[in-house]
Amino acid sequence: MRSMTTLYRQNLTLLTDLYQLTMAYAYWKTGLADREAVFHLSFRKKPFQGGYAIACGLETACELLSGFGFDDESLSYLASLAGNDGKPLFEPGFLDYLADLRLGCDVHAVPEGSVVFPHEPLLRIKGPIAQCQIVETPLLNCINFETLIATKAARICLAARGDPVLEFGLRRAQGADGGLHASRAAFVGGCSSTSNVLAGRLFDIPVKGTHAHSWVMCFDDELSAFEAYAAAMPNNCVFLVDTYDTIQGVHHAIQVGEQLRAQGHEMVGIRLDSGDLAFLSIEARKLLNEADFADAAILASNDLDEHIISSLKQQGATIAVWGVGTKLATAFDQPALGGIYKLSAIRDEKGLWQHRLKLSEQAIKISTPGMLQVRRYYSEGGEPVGDCIFDEILGMPAAGVTIVDPSDSTRRKSVPADAWCEDLLLPAFEAGRRVYDPPGARAARERSQRELGRFHAGIKRLVHPHQYPVGLEKGLSELKHRLICEARGIE
Amino acid sequence: MRSMTTLYRQNLTLLTDLYQLTMAYAYWKTGLADREAVFHLSFRKKPFQGGYAIACGLETACELLSGFGFDDESLSYLASLAGNDGKPLFEPGFLDYLADLRLGCDVHAVPEGSVVFPHEPLLRIKGPIAQCQIVETPLLNCINFETLIATKAARICLAARGDPVLEFGLRRAQGADGGLHASRAAFVGGCSSTSNVLAGRLFDIPVKGTHAHSWVMCFDDELSAFEAYAAAMPNNCVFLVDTYDTIQGVHHAIQVGEQLRAQGHEMVGIRLDSGDLAFLSIEARKLLNEADFADAAILASNDLDEHIISSLKQQGATIAVWGVGTKLATAFDQPALGGIYKLSAIRDEKGLWQHRLKLSEQAIKISTPGMLQVRRYYSEGGEPVGDCIFDEILGMPAAGVTIVDPSDSTRRKSVPADAWCEDLLLPAFEAGRRVYDPPGARAARERSQRELGRFHAGIKRLVHPHQYPVGLEKGLSELKHRLICEARGIE
Repeated sequence: MRSMTTLYRQNLTLLTDLYQLTMAYAYWKTGLADREAVFHLSFRKKPFQGGYAIACGLETACELLSGFGFDDESLSYLASLAGNDGKPLFEPGFLDYLADLRLGCDVHAVPEGSVVFPHEPLLRIKGPIAQCQIVETPLLNCINFETLIATKAARICLAARGDPVLEFGLRRAQGADGGLHASRAAFVGGCSSTSNVLAGRLFDIPVKGTHAHSWVMCFDDELSAFEAYAAAMPNNCVFLVDTYDTIQGVHHAIQVGEQLRAQGHEMVGIRLDSGDLAFLSIEARKLLNEADFADAAILASNDLDEHIISSLKQQGATIAVWGVGTKLATAFDQPALGGIYKLSAIRDEKGLWQHRLKLSEQAIKISTPGMLQVRRYYSEGGEPVGDCIFDEILGMPAAGVTIVDPSDSTRRKSVPADAWCEDLLLPAFEAGRRVYDPPGARAARERSQRELGRFHAGIKRLVHPHQYPVGLEKGLSELKHRLICEARGIE
Repeated sequence: MRSMTTLYRQNLTLLTDLYQLTMAYAYWKTGLADREAVFHLSFRKKPFQGGYAIACGLETACELLSGFGFDDESLSYLASLAGNDGKPLFEPGFLDYLADLRLGCDVHAVPEGSVVFPHEPLLRIKGPIAQCQIVETPLLNCINFETLIATKAARICLAARGDPVLEFGLRRAQGADGGLHASRAAFVGGCSSTSNVLAGRLFDIPVKGTHAHSWVMCFDDELSAFEAYAAAMPNNCVFLVDTYDTIQGVHHAIQVGEQLRAQGHEMVGIRLDSGDLAFLSIEARKLLNEADFADAAILASNDLDEHIISSLKQQGATIAVWGVGTKLATAFDQPALGGIYKLSAIRDEKGLWQHRLKLSEQAIKISTPGMLQVRRYYSEGGEPVGDCIFDEILGMPAAGVTIVDPSDSTRRKSVPADAWCEDLLLPAFEAGRRVYDPPGARAARERSQRELGRFHAGIKRLVHPHQYPVGLEKGLSELKHRLICEARGIE
């Protein structure tokens, strides 16, 4: 696990909302700090109006949890905080409690690269309630962001229909770490490579890059610039042809490509970064083919996203490699997933589990009680046919599983009891000890590609996708309904 | 400067695009690596369809530049990269060159918290061209993001008309660092405090927080939950009243507020997090006032942004403190500033400066040549009346300054030669040595509030703002026009 250690070398336990610590304090004062509770991290709506999401961020989450613990610097800072009467917010006994605190939670999680849906827990945290609260914010931070970007990347790669997609959003990403983890998540979601060198080193992602407009502007003319670049780096030649005039640039690239070939090298291709990419790519392709450069790839960039790529494909653009930056690294059209983290069960004084839910006027915002697991069922052909969210406290019925849509209890689906199935949440921490070694970005990318391949094409449509069946196990659905009625005082 | 050191303890020199390094290599091979060049970092369009931006990110930029240098781990990684023939991308001599590389650039920058406009350089980097390229990506990353968020925060705070705004976007921010720097930039732009404890510690920002819905759900009923919280933390009581029924929640808060008062404490206020915030705040205000809690503040949250706050104000909402998360920390409606970094001059073999510009079919995308500075002119009353972008190579005219709109050369404005003025770009690095000590987030926040106060209200409107005059000095405008004509072959 060399990957994350450099980035998270410093203590990040204070990377949380203050209310997690004031609640932890109040739990401690009330004698409830070690009361066992269960929280789930999930999201309510599929991002980008799509049909699915790609889980990502677990490696970061594991690093954050492994580093859990308050160092002296953090404790001194907390000791300096005051309430509205000017007196300390936290009494010394609590700071001693924090100083001795070691992670004691069980964590279950969906592996990175998994295809997931709204209402499904991506993480389940069971443990002392004060600890569950303190880690809420950092867990939401990494899972929310990385899942969002991996999902965006999957959409873009599907639009590119197998063509390589290069991610190069670092310059427009939201901070250093926003850039690093965007690069990693984009790779998990299906991108082939990144321009981000540090991400390449930390996460073992292929890196790509050649030259910018500034290289061309540095010389008296474009041809001299291409010649100088080719002389310097003959084994990495993608010429950016649009600094002055794109078609003229293609002629210059061909000229230098011929010089390269005479020296035993092949030009990799050309890059278009402005103008009418459909028209220019078709014209450039003709010129390249006529000049016997049929293998030279045409790369394109310029504020691309899945919709523009899809449109260019339909227009017959002859683009072989897609460079995507801002729209991917910031998830421009929806820059937050909106993931949530909800208390769903707590032990009472006798040690019995009590289910909990949060009400809302909107049905979609009412949380699901229990200690949840997700079971995915497959057809005989290996296609996923439905996901069942069930409660391990209630258990699964002996036979005849029925799932109920959480937003509409009249929508149901029965699953054959003998259908092949698997549970999505795997143990990651047991009593605070890490029992899961994240397999890294490459393995997560393989998983996302493998799983996406199994799902019906309808759920992968860019717009108006088919709705994959995800429901609560019938007994859980009934329990939830009963708890809602109780909370609302309905007989 | 303790602030950034923990976050940037690791070497971040590889946090750049690979093409910066392949270009650096090609410059080195060509013998041009140490050729002196000038680049400027600027943005083309005002974010959020507003009238201005707030410069931010210079402290991060200074930390990144101070840490410039390739360590052994970075060099080993670069040595491992291969070109399309499988041979190394970089030859050993270049890696030796990188190993010895020390920052040798002059950097000028606009201080954090300054009000800035499109086309104005926020940073100017002059130095060996290879170095200028390598630092391009990280500089764009931090200035783009932090300027974006500081600007968003300024808009939100102006909509709140002086009410305190609490930033709590960490859980939805784009990565750990996205969250940390969003909190800092939001404070620079005018927010009063953050929920982000680590940001509070690192950047000396006030932190705030009380309790979440989960606290209430942990108890058998809401009243017991409020009582337990008040008993634990009597000097930090803001009761979240919407877990079950908001108006009932206000009654519970009042009941516990009375208990607190009997013990010599005052409830700080209540928080609304869902429902009709205009209606509920007005009802809650009545109830609180009738119960003699006129000083108890009403806080509100729930996907707020400047437009919703403005609308709630117009509806007479009695909200005193605004909690803003996702929409601020991700700049939801425009999550990237789109800042650029362009070569604008390079010395020729004789050491003479040669102006450079990049063409585009869109006038707004044609870069400005020169070694630029921005001079801001003020009226006798101290109101800014226009900014002049001029070229230090050309110099300023002896008398009679005229500025020309960069997008429309027929729009011009003359500035009295004796008008009070100041230059916005200050020296930050001289020959790679840091000569500027960023004054920190609090001072930057004071600057943003002071400068915004000086500008005409028209430019601060949320929609359809007045366009503040920013132009190129007439001589520079003419030079740019001449260079465009030359590049396009126009006589």
